[in-house]
Amino acid sequence: MNAPAEFAPHLEPRPLPAPMLDALRARFGERCVSSLAVREQHGRDESPFDVPPPEVVVFCESNDDVVFVVTLANRHAVPVIPFGAGSSLEGHLLAVQGGVSIDLTRMNRVLRVNAEDLTVTVQAGVTRMQLNREIKDSGLFFPIDPGADATLGGMSATRASGTNAVRYGTMRENVLGLTVVTASGELVHTGTRARKSSAGYDLTRLLVGSEGTLGVMTEITLRLVPLPEAVSAAVCFFDSVDAAVRTTIETIQLGVPIARCELLDAHAVRAVNAHDKLGLREQPMLLMEFHGSAASVQEQAETVQALARDNGGADFQWATTPEERTRLWTARHHAYLSGLQMRPGCRAVTTDCCVPISRLAECINATVADVDASGLPYFIVGHVGDGNFHVAYLIDPLQPPERVLAEKLNHQLVARALQMEGTCTGEHGIGLHKMGFLLDEAGAGAVELMRTIKRALDPNNIMNPGKIFAL
Amino acid sequence: MNAPAEFAPHLEPRPLPAPMLDALRARFGERCVSSLAVREQHGRDESPFDVPPPEVVVFCESNDDVVFVVTLANRHAVPVIPFGAGSSLEGHLLAVQGGVSIDLTRMNRVLRVNAEDLTVTVQAGVTRMQLNREIKDSGLFFPIDPGADATLGGMSATRASGTNAVRYGTMRENVLGLTVVTASGELVHTGTRARKSSAGYDLTRLLVGSEGTLGVMTEITLRLVPLPEAVSAAVCFFDSVDAAVRTTIETIQLGVPIARCELLDAHAVRAVNAHDKLGLREQPMLLMEFHGSAASVQEQAETVQALARDNGGADFQWATTPEERTRLWTARHHAYLSGLQMRPGCRAVTTDCCVPISRLAECINATVADVDASGLPYFIVGHVGDGNFHVAYLIDPLQPPERVLAEKLNHQLVARALQMEGTCTGEHGIGLHKMGFLLDEAGAGAVELMRTIKRALDPNNIMNPGKIFAL
Repeated sequence: MNAPAEFAPHLEPRPLPAPMLDALRARFGERCVSSLAVREQHGRDESPFDVPPPEVVVFCESNDDVVFVVTLANRHAVPVIPFGAGSSLEGHLLAVQGGVSIDLTRMNRVLRVNAEDLTVTVQAGVTRMQLNREIKDSGLFFPIDPGADATLGGMSATRASGTNAVRYGTMRENVLGLTVVTASGELVHTGTRARKSSAGYDLTRLLVGSEGTLGVMTEITLRLVPLPEAVSAAVCFFDSVDAAVRTTIETIQLGVPIARCELLDAHAVRAVNAHDKLGLREQPMLLMEFHGSAASVQEQAETVQALARDNGGADFQWATTPEERTRLWTARHHAYLSGLQMRPGCRAVTTDCCVPISRLAECINATVADVDASGLPYFIVGHVGDGNFHVAYLIDPLQPPERVLAEKLNHQLVARALQMEGTCTGEHGIGLHKMGFLLDEAGAGAVELMRTIKRALDPNNIMNPGKIFAL
Repeated sequence: MNAPAEFAPHLEPRPLPAPMLDALRARFGERCVSSLAVREQHGRDESPFDVPPPEVVVFCESNDDVVFVVTLANRHAVPVIPFGAGSSLEGHLLAVQGGVSIDLTRMNRVLRVNAEDLTVTVQAGVTRMQLNREIKDSGLFFPIDPGADATLGGMSATRASGTNAVRYGTMRENVLGLTVVTASGELVHTGTRARKSSAGYDLTRLLVGSEGTLGVMTEITLRLVPLPEAVSAAVCFFDSVDAAVRTTIETIQLGVPIARCELLDAHAVRAVNAHDKLGLREQPMLLMEFHGSAASVQEQAETVQALARDNGGADFQWATTPEERTRLWTARHHAYLSGLQMRPGCRAVTTDCCVPISRLAECINATVADVDASGLPYFIVGHVGDGNFHVAYLIDPLQPPERVLAEKLNHQLVARALQMEGTCTGEHGIGLHKMGFLLDEAGAGAVELMRTIKRALDPNNIMNPGKIFAL
């Protein structure tokens, strides 16, 4: 196993020459900001790294703005880092080589809703919740829900997924096309609004998940989904994580088109109870949602209820009103913050493994045994329908040995997931933290292909340098 | 519009040096074949081009065999062209620059079925029908069905789709990982068996649809789908193509999870009637299939029946037994050959446009008007649930003006599809024929990104050179 770069990201600051700063100020005026507060706000994310902030933040409002910044940066070989909601967990937006943070949050217009084609085109700074608010009268919705109200640019760049992916896929399946500013400052469009295409290399999917290292996405065309006629959510409690996961595995293997299937372990249930006053049984729990026609939802629910019963599941509770459903899913989305509050002052080291569904119970069981033996506080939540789960190790930042212990557990878990033909990251991306793991997972040959593509498309290494792999 | 290279593909033969041929013969013995018959068989596909055959054909039986050939070819800068079933429609396997045809049909083993994970790993020479035969006791099936019994390597390389894509996606969505021999002769694995991943660049999807120009795929890990509990197929007849297409559009917009939704125009129905003695009404027809639980299939069918009725659809006929369904789908798969027989001695110029579903009726109507006015015989079949349809212009190869006319109509159609934000190719790929169209569709900037990737990953341009774009 290769050591991840978790303790001290490698810093190689590249100076931002005065003429470039002058040119940025001349064009952007007050939208070019060098104040420490703004720079620091753009130099932090949800990752546990402390890195000096970018040298300057530019608030872009148009494709032309982005083209201007990138063209200039390329001329001066200065890094550019796209910035959306700042909700990355892997250090994606940290300025490890200095440079310019391109804030895209003002590019927040929904450009075109094509309801009859089930597509929408948005600027990269639109957030997923904003999108769903703006299209709520169309009878459609955008299903990808990673929890945080991330921007669609950020979600595309990290190939995000979340709770609905088991039915609707990830950003990989739901981005139809992109407008992107390449390293040379050219505006390029990829994909079409057709549902499928065999027209040359799939640049769209090469860019989705490239973490800002190949271009700055400015516009995104997405697939939408008709709002289901019926929606029903339920919770069910189990004696063990194993029993909950086995129920999930059997659901997927039967081909039940379940929309969401989330695991919360007893620690996570305790945390959301404390935070959201839910009064749930403090046992391993599945939180599920079914979408479809009324008949189909009922049929799915009956099938899963029978599977749960066979695995000792108890106390199947239905949330039939939208308010009840929202309350449950809000609690699920608060799980991370709720969990942090279980140990005041702690920070979380979070894992993101995803394994083939048949290995999921074995993977989680062994992981629970390891962390229980370690004595470190933790909780587990998982998009288990996809085989993806997150362990949050709650460490005291003032106790370095806890950090070391958490990283050791993380290493053990990743090694286990890879041995099971899984991945070190189901949805958060590589960023800074998992560069070593990527090498273990993909192998030197595949990572070298990635590097070769990066060098060819970004010869001056200005696009979010220092992420995914060392060059 | 850029002119396609249809009349005379640009030939730049590169000599195969004697020492390379000696080395191939030394390793492969009788599996290295230079006879004209075998070379010609490997130098033809379903496209209308006449190109000299490859200089030699090597029958590979292992990854090591492929590594050996590619390593040698790279050293001598000689082209290699992967060969599967030879069912390409776009000239993908024609040796426009000479070189070695790598026949992969002996790499035809299903390596691992992981039924509990709904995945399978196959060698690239396995055909889709073979795969479905070999897994038929698993309760699973591989849904992608382009008609021809293509190899899974060929289907991956062209990003194939076909009749089931409306529900199950295309090769883009169904390839989880690849083993590929890169231009330098290195064996690289991409992807994992997990359902999703954010681990670095999506090399799998860059390679899917790259038409052999970035590497030789030798092994493919695919998603499988549980066999539906119930399957039902139906035909329905309409007064006009427009009415049939409007029924399709409304079905998709309602979110009905229809598995297959195929259009045959009256010419195509007449052709399959003649070929397969079906006795269908010779009117525009939809051929549909519904998958799911018994209740869900019934519900879907009722919904679509109501939509068809509102559009004047008549004579809804159900095929409830597997034998009846097979008979209908076999006829559909014969449509291309049946259509050719409508004009003895003809060749077909085939289109492959795909447009956003809301524009499909308009696109087909205008296309029908053009071709009717031209007087050229033709038929139309379409995967209309995806917005994808094929016009086959039946030309007399001894009458060059007919060829010119067909290409003019093809140009008009592609221009129309692009103007509607569609693509020139839904599933056949670019190959030789659509290189000009790709430039129109993607733009010079995007094609230059593709070229840059190609040059970086294949500096000697040995991987199926002369396809997709000129270098």
